[in-house]
Amino acid sequence: MNLNIDQLALLLAGGPREDIVIRLAAEHPADLAAALRMLEPAQAWGVLKQAERRRQAEVFGYLGREYQTRLATVTPRAELAAIVMDMPADERADLYKELSDEQREALMPALAQAEREDIRQLASYDEGTAGAIMTSDYAALPPDLTATEALTVLRREAPDKETIYRAYVIDADRTLLGSVRLQDLITAPAQARVADVMQRNTHAIGVEDDVEAAARKIARYDVLALPVVDADARLVGIITHDDALDVMEAEATDDFHRVGTITNLESSVATATIPKLYRARIAWLMLLVFGNIFSGAGIAHFEDTIAAHLALMFFLPILIASGGNAGSQSATLMVRALATGDIAVSDWARVLGREFAVAILLGLSMACAIAVIGVFRGGPEIAMVISLSMVLIVIVGSLIGMMLPFVLSRFGLDPATASTPLVTSIADATGVLIYFSIARAILAMP
Amino acid sequence: MNLNIDQLALLLAGGPREDIVIRLAAEHPADLAAALRMLEPAQAWGVLKQAERRRQAEVFGYLGREYQTRLATVTPRAELAAIVMDMPADERADLYKELSDEQREALMPALAQAEREDIRQLASYDEGTAGAIMTSDYAALPPDLTATEALTVLRREAPDKETIYRAYVIDADRTLLGSVRLQDLITAPAQARVADVMQRNTHAIGVEDDVEAAARKIARYDVLALPVVDADARLVGIITHDDALDVMEAEATDDFHRVGTITNLESSVATATIPKLYRARIAWLMLLVFGNIFSGAGIAHFEDTIAAHLALMFFLPILIASGGNAGSQSATLMVRALATGDIAVSDWARVLGREFAVAILLGLSMACAIAVIGVFRGGPEIAMVISLSMVLIVIVGSLIGMMLPFVLSRFGLDPATASTPLVTSIADATGVLIYFSIARAILAMP
Repeated sequence: MNLNIDQLALLLAGGPREDIVIRLAAEHPADLAAALRMLEPAQAWGVLKQAERRRQAEVFGYLGREYQTRLATVTPRAELAAIVMDMPADERADLYKELSDEQREALMPALAQAEREDIRQLASYDEGTAGAIMTSDYAALPPDLTATEALTVLRREAPDKETIYRAYVIDADRTLLGSVRLQDLITAPAQARVADVMQRNTHAIGVEDDVEAAARKIARYDVLALPVVDADARLVGIITHDDALDVMEAEATDDFHRVGTITNLESSVATATIPKLYRARIAWLMLLVFGNIFSGAGIAHFEDTIAAHLALMFFLPILIASGGNAGSQSATLMVRALATGDIAVSDWARVLGREFAVAILLGLSMACAIAVIGVFRGGPEIAMVISLSMVLIVIVGSLIGMMLPFVLSRFGLDPATASTPLVTSIADATGVLIYFSIARAILAMP
Repeated sequence: MNLNIDQLALLLAGGPREDIVIRLAAEHPADLAAALRMLEPAQAWGVLKQAERRRQAEVFGYLGREYQTRLATVTPRAELAAIVMDMPADERADLYKELSDEQREALMPALAQAEREDIRQLASYDEGTAGAIMTSDYAALPPDLTATEALTVLRREAPDKETIYRAYVIDADRTLLGSVRLQDLITAPAQARVADVMQRNTHAIGVEDDVEAAARKIARYDVLALPVVDADARLVGIITHDDALDVMEAEATDDFHRVGTITNLESSVATATIPKLYRARIAWLMLLVFGNIFSGAGIAHFEDTIAAHLALMFFLPILIASGGNAGSQSATLMVRALATGDIAVSDWARVLGREFAVAILLGLSMACAIAVIGVFRGGPEIAMVISLSMVLIVIVGSLIGMMLPFVLSRFGLDPATASTPLVTSIADATGVLIYFSIARAILAMP
């Protein structure tokens, strides 16, 4: 089913034109797009131009933003305009946003007036809002049509709409009144009014609302699409289930990266350039270098203790790493639970109590393990120092890791900024202080 | 729109029965389920039993496995059976899997023969396979019906099917021939055959295939549902878009946790018990303690060097943490890119080259930063030692972090096992060796 690059090369090498068109028609546009992306844009256009117009528009939608814009530069203006006219409203608005001013100026006059306005409208919403990913290709019905009339309207509009499985019922002002399922129109008596068949309390989302909130609503209510309304409750677009899936996938990647101190890598890892990867990584690495100066300063502060008891150094990596590891675990649990809505920011006190109990158990278990090594390696006094330190370090590390996401979100930052390396750095510095303070007290060193 | 616990308490406190039923009918089952979950099961049943049967079944489906089974224990057997009969096929099979043997024995005789067999069949597939989440509530059509006849069939079956927006076309042996959209049946000439309207190359997935692969296919092809076939290409079920969303969300959480060394926490963080959290965390923490012994041993090995140059200790945390941090970043990028299919395991060589280039740039930048501190704090010789160490440690750390997910996946393990703490531990031990080896060489110490 998947067209591969070798087969594409064959298609390019020639062969009768009709064969190519038949081949292109048989593949799923997603597969075709994946194969085309492996070619240089000029070559890709050489293949794609042989397909039917509607097919070209479908494939274009699957190419991904970066490749789309590259392909747009080699596509003749008139043909690009025709493709854009055939693309779904949300996809062409996305493409428009990526084009250079020059490209836009070349493209816009070639489009019909309605399309131009629609594109400008959709492209005007900020990134990350529901407006930025919604489409204007929804089916709308007035409330006073009969079921039969409504079906006739939907039948006529079907080819241009993302979905007609659910139509939105709006009054003359475009105020959203409710929604009706195609399946309910089909099973309704022929003379029933749309208003009688529709569901009144349709969930909707504001056009300026966070796109992630929209995706979560689609997931929560298992709907095919979510209507988007403006401040006056007028219907302006819909967000469909497939966009929700993409949004949630992108959000998960974003959080994943943030927890791993990768920032703003707004491209695929496969195609990211070296400078882009460097920029996504250097800021946090540098910041953490300075963060770790505290650990170094802590060690320097206890130089006398260390000089008198060099055996303490053997246990340093184990102890401070354990605090960081326990803290990373806690932060991981919290960041993800906050992101999925499993816990709310207001739950912090309840979570803190449980975290404390878990941390005590973890600290005691690990203290037992390390005590054995301690006796064997440094004698009973050292064993006591390191077990006691381990319990405290694990508890403090866990609580830091748990609280940090809540604190960050309290200050309006993304909880995922509580990255594993950040938690580790803080826990490390704290661990150094705890360890050597206990050592100095118990070993009665200067 | 959201019913809250206070409103529920009011409902419970009494008030005329009819009011409650009207209230229950107006809320979305997902909202109702969220509110009920906050009550004790017996109380929740007290509210739910006043709703209509179909409504009860809908709400049941949204309660989540843990709560469902608790509620099932307080629901009278006859009423539970009636609810189960009304539940979607996949949801009732999931519920069945969670019930105790006793509960199953009580429930099964109260069900109709067809439902019993359907439940046993659906419950028989292994967790994590497409079979385990598919539903048998799909609409199927023979290829030789006319469009009008097909619409009559679908209209009749609509109430019992998850979706009739796409019907699957099967022959007498249930072999999958293709699929047809409701919208195409409506717009087709009345006498057209289903076989003429249907799409032939419908994407399908095997019943034993990984559920994540099924979800990715739904995302890739933007379909409402994916048909599931057995080894003989016979249709056995469908997986719907809302299940795909849940699967991808759960997979992302799983990877997120794994990278943070949280294992097998198969429950919500909000409701997880202390022993459950302890078990999910202790194994890796212990393992990492032993991993960090290598770092300790490394330090012990260089005790003489350290004793002669205690200033070296100041830079130890910065240097080894930097290797771990750079490695964590690389591992994070790879784990997520492998999980989303952005890069494939076979891409490792290409990625390695780019990673090497990025790591050199990162290492040089960080060496410059630390050299300044080094001159100020330990003089030019120390500055040279630590800058050189920094470059090497960052490069080695990055390459370890990048390669580990590939190596693990080569050995059949989940790439996400390359957790941040594991990468950090390995990078730490390597860092200790690099740092003190360079120090010993340059400072000409014993």
